[in-house]
Amino acid sequence: MPKLWNETVDAHRNAVRQAILDATWALVSEHGMTAVTMSQIAQKSGIGRATLYKYFPDVDTILLAWHRHHVTAHLEQLAAVRDKARGPAARLNAVLTAYARISYHREQHGAELMAFLHRDDEIAPARRQLVDLFRDVIGEVMAHGDIRDDIAAGELAGYCLHALSAAGALPSEAAVHRLVRLTLDGLRPPGARVRG
Amino acid sequence: MPKLWNETVDAHRNAVRQAILDATWALVSEHGMTAVTMSQIAQKSGIGRATLYKYFPDVDTILLAWHRHHVTAHLEQLAAVRDKARGPAARLNAVLTAYARISYHREQHGAELMAFLHRDDEIAPARRQLVDLFRDVIGEVMAHGDIRDDIAAGELAGYCLHALSAAGALPSEAAVHRLVRLTLDGLRPPGARVRG
Repeated sequence: MPKLWNETVDAHRNAVRQAILDATWALVSEHGMTAVTMSQIAQKSGIGRATLYKYFPDVDTILLAWHRHHVTAHLEQLAAVRDKARGPAARLNAVLTAYARISYHREQHGAELMAFLHRDDEIAPARRQLVDLFRDVIGEVMAHGDIRDDIAAGELAGYCLHALSAAGALPSEAAVHRLVRLTLDGLRPPGARVRG
Repeated sequence: MPKLWNETVDAHRNAVRQAILDATWALVSEHGMTAVTMSQIAQKSGIGRATLYKYFPDVDTILLAWHRHHVTAHLEQLAAVRDKARGPAARLNAVLTAYARISYHREQHGAELMAFLHRDDEIAPARRQLVDLFRDVIGEVMAHGDIRDDIAAGELAGYCLHALSAAGALPSEAAVHRLVRLTLDGLRPPGARVRG
């Protein structure tokens, strides 16, 4: 049964890969990006250096793989949150809250690592998928007349993503929820407001 | 008159310094950050290489000086805009618009340069000054009851700064103004809204 055997090999390779990513992340979080070596990563993930080099050529490549893994996971998480919520307004609320929470937990990285990951061009398609996901959820609420339609859904999506990234500097989950409320309030139809 | 002489020397040094910053920026914009050499900068700014090295040890240091110069200039610009506007609401509107415009024009840098500048710890005090400026302008409008007071002024400032940075990806000045309106709408008192 070669198919089953291949699946076993794949599962093993994925497990090793994940162990390497986790070990690297733990080391970088503790010691900083430039202080971590391939030897330390091999030791921490419990594999030989020769095996490690069969998976990744250097620390930078591992960090980029780790980052892409997380970006993909976050996109999947947002899609799952979207699919679980019932009705357009609930979907928007759920997606904004989930993204704010991700931003809240993400910004713990040092500036050096952030700058390094920022340079990764391969993240661009995921970034576009993120904007598209927001735009579609917003467009659906707009079609029901429950948010403003004087600004295009794509521009509203950009506003939401940037506004919610302020969560990275917030001190508590309560503050994150206030930020979601604030961002949502910007989306309300201007006609639904009494002007002061 | 040694004082006058010193002033002349200072003015000359500042002019040379500024010429170096401008030349470096022009070269980096055209060729990218890693492709620019000290020799090219000397040539472009019309000074000798020996003179250039009396001012700056390397390209990175020039880029950081250029960035700090711009950050300071932007802060001064925002303070000037604030001081020129009449009344708290007009001040808030003017400061938000000016910051959105700055973001709109800023994001033309490549990802590599952005990542490099992001690492500059010396920018942190300027960043805090920026948040403080927004917080104070917001606090003043809040004291007049013209924006929401259910969220602290500092949190509203963080929201504004992040939301307005979406201007960097916008296609036109008109879109920038829509973003300012959107961001301001988030700040309106919840009581002034008719809930749908």
